[in-house]
Amino acid sequence: MTSDARTLEWTGDGLRLLDQTVLPGRVEYVVARDVDTLVDAIRRLVVRGAPALGVAGAFGVAVAVLQAAREGWDGAARDAAIARVREARPTAVNLAAGVDRVLPYIGKGADAVAAEAQALLDEDVRGNRAIGAHGAGWILARAGDRPLRVLTHCNAGALATAGWGTALGVVRELHERGRVELVYADETRPLLQGARLTAWELDQAGIPCVVQADGAAPSTILRGLADVAVIGADRIAANGDTANKIGSVGVALACHAAGIPLVVAAPWSTVDLALPDGGGIPIEERPADEVLTWGGTRTAPDRVTAYNPAFDVTPARLVTALVTETGVLEVSAGATPGRIVHHGDRADLPEPPHRSAAGAA
Amino acid sequence: MTSDARTLEWTGDGLRLLDQTVLPGRVEYVVARDVDTLVDAIRRLVVRGAPALGVAGAFGVAVAVLQAAREGWDGAARDAAIARVREARPTAVNLAAGVDRVLPYIGKGADAVAAEAQALLDEDVRGNRAIGAHGAGWILARAGDRPLRVLTHCNAGALATAGWGTALGVVRELHERGRVELVYADETRPLLQGARLTAWELDQAGIPCVVQADGAAPSTILRGLADVAVIGADRIAANGDTANKIGSVGVALACHAAGIPLVVAAPWSTVDLALPDGGGIPIEERPADEVLTWGGTRTAPDRVTAYNPAFDVTPARLVTALVTETGVLEVSAGATPGRIVHHGDRADLPEPPHRSAAGAA
Repeated sequence: MTSDARTLEWTGDGLRLLDQTVLPGRVEYVVARDVDTLVDAIRRLVVRGAPALGVAGAFGVAVAVLQAAREGWDGAARDAAIARVREARPTAVNLAAGVDRVLPYIGKGADAVAAEAQALLDEDVRGNRAIGAHGAGWILARAGDRPLRVLTHCNAGALATAGWGTALGVVRELHERGRVELVYADETRPLLQGARLTAWELDQAGIPCVVQADGAAPSTILRGLADVAVIGADRIAANGDTANKIGSVGVALACHAAGIPLVVAAPWSTVDLALPDGGGIPIEERPADEVLTWGGTRTAPDRVTAYNPAFDVTPARLVTALVTETGVLEVSAGATPGRIVHHGDRADLPEPPHRSAAGAA
Repeated sequence: MTSDARTLEWTGDGLRLLDQTVLPGRVEYVVARDVDTLVDAIRRLVVRGAPALGVAGAFGVAVAVLQAAREGWDGAARDAAIARVREARPTAVNLAAGVDRVLPYIGKGADAVAAEAQALLDEDVRGNRAIGAHGAGWILARAGDRPLRVLTHCNAGALATAGWGTALGVVRELHERGRVELVYADETRPLLQGARLTAWELDQAGIPCVVQADGAAPSTILRGLADVAVIGADRIAANGDTANKIGSVGVALACHAAGIPLVVAAPWSTVDLALPDGGGIPIEERPADEVLTWGGTRTAPDRVTAYNPAFDVTPARLVTALVTETGVLEVSAGATPGRIVHHGDRADLPEPPHRSAAGAA
């Protein structure tokens, strides 16, 4: 991704977001200087992806503090606005975590809040680089010498993060090491983040890719056309159950059946240790029209509706490796996030950064 | 389906096809009076679905015979035209079988060919009714008392057959017995046969349904929202490996993981006993633009291409029941088509009709 197309950027008085709803046809921006604009942008998926939502939430607090000052809100009105940002999308734990991260700085003013949000952004990019290195290392340690065919679902790239990407960060690192033959990018219905965003990012980076219908992914895997699947995550429970874009669990089932690894790449902040398993992850249901219409034209009969869950939950037994900035957990083999943290069985894991962040809060 | 919207109808001098590419927005017809028009219609999916393709192939021979007479072709030109019909789509064994069925009647003229094609059409409708009864009976014998939530993929309905439907024939029969609570219709990318055709058929029949993205199907199944999945088939190998619309094997993997039955409903003519297993089934790759564009607008970056297989192969171990007009085979339990026919272990199976057809030829 080129520096002139940043996913998120603080302008000093607002948050500039690359409008992902109009990619790849147009490169346009939404500048949110008020909470309504930001919440609308988050809901419309102008900005999406768990890590990017975390950064957007953090800057969103700065937006709310500036708007409160400008419009003379009292503390309760300001806090209500911040709560709206925090709850703009229910499944992604990062959005709330990003908001919470900067709350201690509210008393010091908008600039202090924005500075802490910028620190989160910078940490995200550094973390993604570490995820890429850990993930590529783990995959290559298990691969033969030939170039790899990598399957990915949705967009866990630079566009889903503050930069570089999580799942695509792993792919970018593999590419830098000369080891990517081809990426299968699931188109990711209904909103086509794969066809629109992942394919765009990969093309910009010069990484060979083909788009395929989501329904093709299990067959591609079972036919031996992919060596590894790498996906992101929106929330990960203590036992390793992983919520990610709808369609992920079909990829996971196929990986298991074919005996290839499913690698989940996500910042440690995506792990929610308060959830023992995926049963407690709320699944956002999005508007039926996302499935039933296309460019304003209805594709299904008028009287028919749609079921449109945005996420599914991949059970831990299907997650071969969870890659965070702190290292790799072989989840299906028993190295779950909860076990690592609670039992102190850390192997190659340094102190999880969410704990330091919690300490700072 | 109402009688004024028939999938295929012989007009006396051509084959009238309900144009499935413009449903559900418009009800329009293509009348094929020459081979070029028919081959084009088959390739563009004006008519699709294995049984409907069989009937179209049979009438296609009559079209070729009429055109040969009209335009003064010699026998070689006529046979070449028939071969083009036969090979218009590579995966569906029914298309070739429909052509082959009527070849013995060519010497008797176009009317005799058309009469045999009409017999095939009538048999198809009767066969579908039998498939519906066998399938519904098998499912209900294993279901509790509550209404069923049925998941289906693509369109194996009246639009895919000469009428009534195979997978949707089972659903229609369950509905007539008052046992359908809801049908989950996978939208079936890239051509949306589920959203456009299955939802239209179900709506016309008054059967409650919701459309979902293909990626949602495994999650719907794993979350316990479906009691059974019923799909059609384009070709079935002797061991029970089943080729069906791309995305089917993801449904099958999820059914297996969730412990619900995967029911394949298809006419016996879909079984290709010459193929020992699914490894020999040719998988048609269709144009990349089906995935990459929408209504003429490109959704992926210009330089990116697509992998667009039309079918996948579900391994026999995932096929709980194969329902044909002759009865039910519990494939994953070992009752494969090849074993039944070759070993004479027929249980509730009468003489497979394809053998009489072969005898007639």
